[in-house]
Amino acid sequence: MTTLSITGGQVLLPDGTVTRADVLVDQDSGEILETGADLEGDATLDAADSLVTPGFVNGHCHVAMTLLRGAADDKPLDAWLQEDIWPVEAELTPEDVRAGAELGILEMIKGGVTAFSDMYFHVPEIATAVEKAGVRAVLGHTAITIGKDEADARADMEESLAVATDLDGAADGRISTTFQPHSLTTVGEEYLREYVPRAREVGLPIHFHANETTNEVDPIVEEHGVRPLEYARDVGLLEAEDFVAHGVHVDGTEIDLLSETGASVIHCPASNMKLASGMAPVQRLREAGVTVGLGTDGAASNNDLSLLDEGRDAAMIGKLAAEDASAVPADAVVEMLTQGSADAMGLPVGRLEAGAPADLAVIDLERPHLTPAHDLVSHLVYAAAASDVRHTVCDGQVLMRDREVTTLEEDAVLERASEAATQLFERAEG
Amino acid sequence: MTTLSITGGQVLLPDGTVTRADVLVDQDSGEILETGADLEGDATLDAADSLVTPGFVNGHCHVAMTLLRGAADDKPLDAWLQEDIWPVEAELTPEDVRAGAELGILEMIKGGVTAFSDMYFHVPEIATAVEKAGVRAVLGHTAITIGKDEADARADMEESLAVATDLDGAADGRISTTFQPHSLTTVGEEYLREYVPRAREVGLPIHFHANETTNEVDPIVEEHGVRPLEYARDVGLLEAEDFVAHGVHVDGTEIDLLSETGASVIHCPASNMKLASGMAPVQRLREAGVTVGLGTDGAASNNDLSLLDEGRDAAMIGKLAAEDASAVPADAVVEMLTQGSADAMGLPVGRLEAGAPADLAVIDLERPHLTPAHDLVSHLVYAAAASDVRHTVCDGQVLMRDREVTTLEEDAVLERASEAATQLFERAEG
Ligand SMILES: [Zn+2]
Ligand SMILES: [Zn+2]
Repeated sequence: MTTLSITGGQVLLPDGTVTRADVLVDQDSGEILETGADLEGDATLDAADSLVTPGFVNGHCHVAMTLLRGAADDKPLDAWLQEDIWPVEAELTPEDVRAGAELGILEMIKGGVTAFSDMYFHVPEIATAVEKAGVRAVLGHTAITIGKDEADARADMEESLAVATDLDGAADGRISTTFQPHSLTTVGEEYLREYVPRAREVGLPIHFHANETTNEVDPIVEEHGVRPLEYARDVGLLEAEDFVAHGVHVDGTEIDLLSETGASVIHCPASNMKLASGMAPVQRLREAGVTVGLGTDGAASNNDLSLLDEGRDAAMIGKLAAEDASAVPADAVVEMLTQGSADAMGLPVGRLEAGAPADLAVIDLERPHLTPAHDLVSHLVYAAAASDVRHTVCDGQVLMRDREVTTLEEDAVLERASEAATQLFERAEG
Repeated sequence: MTTLSITGGQVLLPDGTVTRADVLVDQDSGEILETGADLEGDATLDAADSLVTPGFVNGHCHVAMTLLRGAADDKPLDAWLQEDIWPVEAELTPEDVRAGAELGILEMIKGGVTAFSDMYFHVPEIATAVEKAGVRAVLGHTAITIGKDEADARADMEESLAVATDLDGAADGRISTTFQPHSLTTVGEEYLREYVPRAREVGLPIHFHANETTNEVDPIVEEHGVRPLEYARDVGLLEAEDFVAHGVHVDGTEIDLLSETGASVIHCPASNMKLASGMAPVQRLREAGVTVGLGTDGAASNNDLSLLDEGRDAAMIGKLAAEDASAVPADAVVEMLTQGSADAMGLPVGRLEAGAPADLAVIDLERPHLTPAHDLVSHLVYAAAASDVRHTVCDGQVLMRDREVTTLEEDAVLERASEAATQLFERAEG
């Protein structure tokens, strides 16, 4: 057994309290052995004047979209997708997806994110990047059927099943998978009715977009006479292991349905604000007992992959949505950033305790904006930024030490991504 | 003449475009001499792979409130002020205000903020901190009359006049001042009617809080039968040089009134979200021709003093408020962060051009979250963070070089602020 001791820090425990402790990790199993006083390991990671938190968990991402960061802003979802995003995405090669994924994962490691759930295509490239970078991921191929002939539509649905089956357990078990119909309006009902049961047969959880904008809600209400999540349930979605990205425009019936089924919501506040999609009723969802995690969505609608930003945003618009400054308080945000996303994604992470995977972030508290130290949970949500993360550890391995990422070569990743982006936009415009 | 050349960067010009240029500064006059190719100076500040922007201008702050950062969160404005903030503020000594101001100014320099407008008390201490730190500030003593007997109320109003008169032009002209009735509900009408004309006589602009929450609007409508800003105009406020903090709940009549008078609004989106105060109609204000700047408000309701965060927040809730993703676009945010706040505060800064004061920030673009470089204005608003600022220059002097603040000793400032905060809360609780 090779052990690592993370020493001298304040540790954020699963109950939300902060205590002075060391964290001892078994680097072979990748698990936390113990948290407590004076723990010695074979190696040491200094956490003096720092807060040791569970690694942040990004519940909804399109990681390779970093290549499109800042390419088109300030437009509503439909026009943005149709005019700016989809034409460029049509030109993405597997190599582009690899370059974009490495850039996104690099950014996430630098912000203390140790696991993410992704929806995209050319997924084996993303899996390779995950394996190399050392993070944890729940991957899948996103299938769309609208606007396609039956052969193409079927091929896409089949690919979503096949990719999820093939990649499950990859990267020494750090990769798990989901089946991914893109959304309730972009996949036809007949395909949902056929493929959702097939995904269940092979034990795949299902990750899909729902209720992001009113434009996604109204057509379903019109066609089916029920709310989108009622329709989702009717076609076999919303089992306890499933999770929905967005859930902005959900009514009381749908909140009850989420609560009854145990399906989770990944709240993406930055994307919802930037696209003017609306404000999810996070306080109501949490009061109803729904598991809520946080996600960045893609970098094109955010425009960064900082979960700490997402946490601050969740508190901020959670209060506005509830018209109550006490709604979505700091401790709720910390729970969503860690346990919430992890539980939604079916990962046993998000808690610093013996036996749990050693996925954690060490945050430097010796900063003007984190002084004085009245309340470290408040600071984590309302004042800390991605750049305050000193070290990132996943599965017991140190992925970043003193801001140096150990598994990816930062300069080379930036250069490859810049080059890929330049050529991609030349192709898309040419 | 001693000159400084900021070399190798991309420069954000006053029209919002970005071009490759050097910036030559006269350090004696503190002014920009020229922007252009290959400019040599006596000294050099490296801006390769960086964006040179005007220094950010914080239009509304209570800088010494850094001592209360994170001490009380997740409560609505009235309860938060009365239960948590005012009892602690009552214990603040001049030394505390000095320690808190140095901490806040240190944080602002590290985030590229070169000027701020402040509302507080023990203002000479804040002026001393401003002078030492080398930033620019518009200071004032905030007067409140409600809940006070006439002698105390008058003394507070007189102090606001006296402080503004005394400190105007201090710190080699880097300090200017405003007269500051706290708000339309915390200063009695008779005092406004008496003191506003006196402030005009001595040429003082007026900075006050207005229309922050509906609790501030309703009593005025009830008592006076007009909207708060109509009442403000009636008592002599809202001249062209005045500026209002917040302006969240303003109706069409009030927007027209701001537009007609030329008075400005300092939008404080983070504070408005965190206290669930509401969403200011920033797009409508701008369309009506109102000058809109951005402010952090105090660190107790934010909880940091990052203007870049404020810019992102302004875009985000500006879109939600307008229910339009094209509202408050990135270029509008950049204008508010720089020229908007500067114009509101009556400062000739916020524009990188020959003859303007050399107040600027140099932002490192070699970061994962700022890659690829499709659009630097987008990156500035949607992805850059305070920690991306490499250098900060104010009045031609380098206040931060490669993240090292030159005018304040960072460790000592953090230590004094932590110590002051600990003792302050012991007194307040004891
Ligand atoms: Zn998405
Ligand atoms: Zn204020």
